[in-house]
Amino acid sequence: MSDTTVEGWTEQARPPTLFRRFSFERYADTRAFLDRVAAVQETLGVAPHNISFGTTYVNVTIGAGDAGLGEIERELARRIAAAATGATP
Amino acid sequence: MSDTTVEGWTEQARPPTLFRRFSFERYADTRAFLDRVAAVQETLGVAPHNISFGTTYVNVTIGAGDAGLGEIERELARRIAAAATGATP
Repeated sequence: MSDTTVEGWTEQARPPTLFRRFSFERYADTRAFLDRVAAVQETLGVAPHNISFGTTYVNVTIGAGDAGLGEIERELARRIAAAATGATP
Repeated sequence: MSDTTVEGWTEQARPPTLFRRFSFERYADTRAFLDRVAAVQETLGVAPHNISFGTTYVNVTIGAGDAGLGEIERELARRIAAAATGATP
């Protein structure tokens, strides 16, 4: 594991992305998480490449395109993970 | 086109799903649409199988599993489409 890896996220090289699945017991928890993620991305001014969700899960893909993953993308990943209060392991 | 098809949505038989992509010019419009979709599903008590979004698009998949698509899923589709004010064609 390189020192640039963000703990808990799966890093892929081509294209450069960070991926993580968050699971929740109830829709209310999923919804609250999505709202916190929206707040995080508005604060940082950078958004995940894609968010895919159902009632009890949220898959988050962070990618910066050809430019690769920079510190801002890694900070986004850390803050999203911190926002996942109530997620099941 | 059968009389049960919901206008503007792509219906697939196996598994039974309704799919539609909504595009927006700005993230603020995407965000507002997502909030309205959440309100719709809370009102109806039924949720899309999956919602996948980036800053300027939202892909919605409605499915009821093996039970097939019922009137409640078609009503969900119609109300979500009606909530897409500001979507680009």
